[in-house]
Amino acid sequence: MTLLIHAPPSFRPELYRELIAKQAPDIAVRMRNEAGAPEDIVFAAGWNPPDGFWHQFPNLRGITSLGAGVDSLLRDQDIPPNLPIARLVDGQMARMMAEYVVLAVLSHRRGWLEHVRDPAGAGWGVSLARPGNQVLILGLGHLGTSVAQALQPLGFQVSGWVRTPRESPLPEVRLHHGRTGLQEALPHADYLVSLLPLTPETQNLLDHKLLRQAKPGAYLINTGRGQTVVEQDLLDALDSGLLNGACLDVFQTEPLPPEHPFLAHPRVMVTPHISSVTPPDSVVPQIIENYRRALAGEPLLNLIDRARGY
Amino acid sequence: MTLLIHAPPSFRPELYRELIAKQAPDIAVRMRNEAGAPEDIVFAAGWNPPDGFWHQFPNLRGITSLGAGVDSLLRDQDIPPNLPIARLVDGQMARMMAEYVVLAVLSHRRGWLEHVRDPAGAGWGVSLARPGNQVLILGLGHLGTSVAQALQPLGFQVSGWVRTPRESPLPEVRLHHGRTGLQEALPHADYLVSLLPLTPETQNLLDHKLLRQAKPGAYLINTGRGQTVVEQDLLDALDSGLLNGACLDVFQTEPLPPEHPFLAHPRVMVTPHISSVTPPDSVVPQIIENYRRALAGEPLLNLIDRARGY
Repeated sequence: MTLLIHAPPSFRPELYRELIAKQAPDIAVRMRNEAGAPEDIVFAAGWNPPDGFWHQFPNLRGITSLGAGVDSLLRDQDIPPNLPIARLVDGQMARMMAEYVVLAVLSHRRGWLEHVRDPAGAGWGVSLARPGNQVLILGLGHLGTSVAQALQPLGFQVSGWVRTPRESPLPEVRLHHGRTGLQEALPHADYLVSLLPLTPETQNLLDHKLLRQAKPGAYLINTGRGQTVVEQDLLDALDSGLLNGACLDVFQTEPLPPEHPFLAHPRVMVTPHISSVTPPDSVVPQIIENYRRALAGEPLLNLIDRARGY
Repeated sequence: MTLLIHAPPSFRPELYRELIAKQAPDIAVRMRNEAGAPEDIVFAAGWNPPDGFWHQFPNLRGITSLGAGVDSLLRDQDIPPNLPIARLVDGQMARMMAEYVVLAVLSHRRGWLEHVRDPAGAGWGVSLARPGNQVLILGLGHLGTSVAQALQPLGFQVSGWVRTPRESPLPEVRLHHGRTGLQEALPHADYLVSLLPLTPETQNLLDHKLLRQAKPGAYLINTGRGQTVVEQDLLDALDSGLLNGACLDVFQTEPLPPEHPFLAHPRVMVTPHISSVTPPDSVVPQIIENYRRALAGEPLLNLIDRARGY
């Protein structure tokens, strides 16, 4: 009865082992590169495993993603169809995401990089602040709600776009849904923040057709998944003036290739997928809890809906 | 019965004239460089006038500063001692200040400039985030309260330092006061945010003695007045590692001379006094109201206490 950890080095997998050893010394832990009988593995915490990876473990009863998204697990068409899959839902990750989006929105609104790079450039006492306080969050789940809560006290009017009709988690945040809702909301947003998960429905959703419906001069922030944006369409929208700029943390290909046009674009800010990084100490308790639930045959915490894809 | 506007070009004084003409066509407006009988002037909106300037107007009944601070008026030792002086208190200015301080705090906390300048520098998916969420605001007035309200939903624990004991404006913000209170609060703050007005008490307050009491590795943000900081002592504190960095919007001399060591310092962010710029359209109604009050012999809105200096 062993818990398998499959994660790239940037996740600091050894730290998970240490934390689990401290908090639940009864749980045996195996790393992806360690030898051992495949029959021992009953639960796994994984990120971006190779296709078909899970079939070697006949006694696997559940997997948790090591991030808020599960696309790195579901990409594998061969993943056993009835295996319960959980994602991480964590307050610290939500706080990190809120910090990032607030930084991206305010950096643009206040001309922050221009002021800091060349303090005397615009003239002493001359602010480069831009008007516009309407923010549309695409994908208003746990992370999006935290972003909205951070933006509101700064005077931003936030609305959200979701897949299917539901009640807004925040009284002052209006929710739109479906294709029609997106068409309604897009022309009003000064800031378009995408926190969309990657699913067959969202793949390449932000294309020329969608960006054309945005408010002229809008600013795009993508901290969801790179595969939701058609990158050439985004470059065209920036160069034609349809969009004023973009702050991107996720890309079709990561790490972003050094020759990618985003890196040299004067109106694109690029960060290396750090908007919300999984904090091991904060999430280990829910991994332990889900290991125990899987063993006891109980439903996992933060179980995802396989049909919906998140 | 004329309203005099005395402001440098960066304040866009002509815009004040236009707005007053629209909102109160009965009020005659004169700019500082326009000829006219000094006896006409009954009220003035001013910023940084030359010493002794006000004595030429025998019928002056009040002045409003064109900013949140009044030090540019009170610096003049010759200002008539019983002349009522008001400052601007404005929601948009408070919002701008909150935006700036949130940008400064989060830029440091998340290594924002490092990530944006060299996205691949630290490694893909490797966050440069720093721990520490304690913020001490020196000067918790109207602007400081707005800053605190913006920081709290982002998970920061905010405390404030004020001159004399009073009740905190926000239930979760603990207030400290006086020299003893400052000594108590300083060693706990990861971020030291100064919004202090310039008064004889605050001039050069942030010197070596005070900075030495700060938490090792703290980060200083100054959006109050440059004259509250002994700049050489700040440079020494940065170079000795006492402070981790600083984000400065105000300076002993403004504009900051091009050869000033802050501009080349790798751990100092400099902005050109743009944290909160007076928005003419938002403040003109209170200037008109104070003109009418001065004429009617009524107490001005946002009257300052001459003895206290703010």
